[in-house]
Amino acid sequence: MLLRGFNPLNPCHQCIYYLRNMEKTFSYDQLLNFSKSIFQKIGCHAADAETAAKALLSADLRGVDSHGVARLSGYVRLWEVKRVNSNPVIKIIHETPSTAVVDGDSGLGLVVAPYAMHIAIGKAKNVGSGWVSVQNSNHFGIAGYHAMMALPHDMIGIAMTNASALVSPTFSVQRMLGTNPIAVAIPAGNEQPFVADFATTTASNGKLEILQRKNQETPYGWVQTKTGEPSTNANELKEGGAMLPLGGDREHGSHKGYMLGSIVDIFSGILSGANYGPWVPPFPSYVPLPENMPGNGIGHFFGAMRIDAFRPADDFKNNMDNWIRAFKNAKPVDGIDKVIIPGEPETEMEIHRMEYGIVLPQSIVESLEELGEKFSVKLI
Amino acid sequence: MLLRGFNPLNPCHQCIYYLRNMEKTFSYDQLLNFSKSIFQKIGCHAADAETAAKALLSADLRGVDSHGVARLSGYVRLWEVKRVNSNPVIKIIHETPSTAVVDGDSGLGLVVAPYAMHIAIGKAKNVGSGWVSVQNSNHFGIAGYHAMMALPHDMIGIAMTNASALVSPTFSVQRMLGTNPIAVAIPAGNEQPFVADFATTTASNGKLEILQRKNQETPYGWVQTKTGEPSTNANELKEGGAMLPLGGDREHGSHKGYMLGSIVDIFSGILSGANYGPWVPPFPSYVPLPENMPGNGIGHFFGAMRIDAFRPADDFKNNMDNWIRAFKNAKPVDGIDKVIIPGEPETEMEIHRMEYGIVLPQSIVESLEELGEKFSVKLI
Repeated sequence: MLLRGFNPLNPCHQCIYYLRNMEKTFSYDQLLNFSKSIFQKIGCHAADAETAAKALLSADLRGVDSHGVARLSGYVRLWEVKRVNSNPVIKIIHETPSTAVVDGDSGLGLVVAPYAMHIAIGKAKNVGSGWVSVQNSNHFGIAGYHAMMALPHDMIGIAMTNASALVSPTFSVQRMLGTNPIAVAIPAGNEQPFVADFATTTASNGKLEILQRKNQETPYGWVQTKTGEPSTNANELKEGGAMLPLGGDREHGSHKGYMLGSIVDIFSGILSGANYGPWVPPFPSYVPLPENMPGNGIGHFFGAMRIDAFRPADDFKNNMDNWIRAFKNAKPVDGIDKVIIPGEPETEMEIHRMEYGIVLPQSIVESLEELGEKFSVKLI
Repeated sequence: MLLRGFNPLNPCHQCIYYLRNMEKTFSYDQLLNFSKSIFQKIGCHAADAETAAKALLSADLRGVDSHGVARLSGYVRLWEVKRVNSNPVIKIIHETPSTAVVDGDSGLGLVVAPYAMHIAIGKAKNVGSGWVSVQNSNHFGIAGYHAMMALPHDMIGIAMTNASALVSPTFSVQRMLGTNPIAVAIPAGNEQPFVADFATTTASNGKLEILQRKNQETPYGWVQTKTGEPSTNANELKEGGAMLPLGGDREHGSHKGYMLGSIVDIFSGILSGANYGPWVPPFPSYVPLPENMPGNGIGHFFGAMRIDAFRPADDFKNNMDNWIRAFKNAKPVDGIDKVIIPGEPETEMEIHRMEYGIVLPQSIVESLEELGEKFSVKLI
């Protein structure tokens, strides 16, 4: 929708504004193939490139736009500064029948995480459950994707990761924890599966970035100033402030969010021998690595529990259907249609975007076009 | 500290006030032996009575006064109305090398939970980790006690339980979930262990009860009215209102607290074949059981992971010490001494109360004296 009289060689300010905010729609396959090609161009084997592209695109499909193709150029930049090894030898460095530690060899988390989740699923097949802690990895996209890998096997899937420190523990002004998400995917019968996937902060960094772009304020409880005062400034992180653990402040249970984020950090970072706390490497390639890092790369933690290692899968699924229906039918507050089941909006989004495509803002389209140009890959 | 001129046969109002608020101090052993005797009087074997008394008293020791001997008469009343079987045949009804389902045979949760946690620990010894879901149980005291059973074995311990519905999911006015606590205990080296133990609500029911007794208001975000309006009325539950999931409202992440409480409910109730959601039996013996209960009793879930199933325990503990020291030394906000490590205040309380005794308010002392009289057991 260009303005009348638009001159591409000399666009006016209003035209630039419109151009910047234009959107384009792509099919899932277009973006998948493009991402796969880019991953191959940076050195990934075809199979790894496909694994990474699928994990990445699952975020776009499920509506977590901050973690999908919007980050493709970020992953490439990590490869450019040699923080990502595109051809890693991922291996188990220690294991028991139900546990393992995986060394990701600095690979893309998008490749390392599915590898580790496969091991967890295999162990669950053998002995009922499998638990895998991962060192020497990088960012793995959305946690929910990896947890959901367990669902077709009639297993409960669990995925978590630590991340670079943006969050202050309760009573501190120092950033010590990442937004450290947890995902739990649980199979149902006729109903859609239950899929929880959430940062252990009041709000995710993605939501904060949206407010920054729109120049809007946050509610209290999302961020604090560099001296620990409550704030509604979405740009507080740039001024030395910090994000807050789920709960926001002590009176509203922020110590619980702090505990949750810490558990994710310890399971992902310390159980594996990765970095932890303030030493977790950052995603942006231009941010220097922390000094005196005590471990290797980023850490993840995965779990898989076979349903019939506890009770017959059909009995479990019948109960899950009953649970889901009871919650869907719980009396809503006035003005609300119904109670939301975890994962329900994301599943609906996935169905919609598979059919109608994925809409990307112009800024993301441009970043993909730039990548395409650099690596001689056509976006469409 | 009685008032001058006190006449025990005709106390004035002020004297009655002082008498009611008097406190008495007991040693740990006094309360342990008394509780053990009471459990034996209701039919528990000596070993079970000891197990139950230790689990119960751990709450008093660690400063969770709402869950300790204050509840002893409540457990007895559940036995009186035949909801607790004091002589249960607890057994594994299904298992794999790393998982089990335990039937608690309507026993005291204080006995069933340590039994199940022992099984989890045994499986972790054999295959690296052990995961036990429990049906047909009752309230188990504080989750942290059971999780901490893993610590002497150099294992991470996990414990959770569902409970009767007091909490509304985000966007609902209906009580669908209990306060469903999660505990995770992680060994350290020279530092005290990391012990997280928290209800998945903004504030625990115990904290709400304290405000009720003091006739004080809650902060916003703890409870809502029966129509789902924000409220500061600590007595809101009595008027048809509900407690709120951690986060308080949607804007502050209550959907995350709702997800956490749901995960606890499903792992404890559905994986085991216990009751779940709005059908979990209540603790007060006078509250009728929910209609059409779909499972057996209350459900719990326990986990144990052997540290050296992942990496050498000493390496892990060194890293945990480093983690704990880094967080203790994180820059605090003005006016605060230092950042608190999860479990630290409870460990300090335990050391203090072991040495100086456990102070009980007169109302609790009276409830214990009544119990003692009924069962011919001397309190001191």
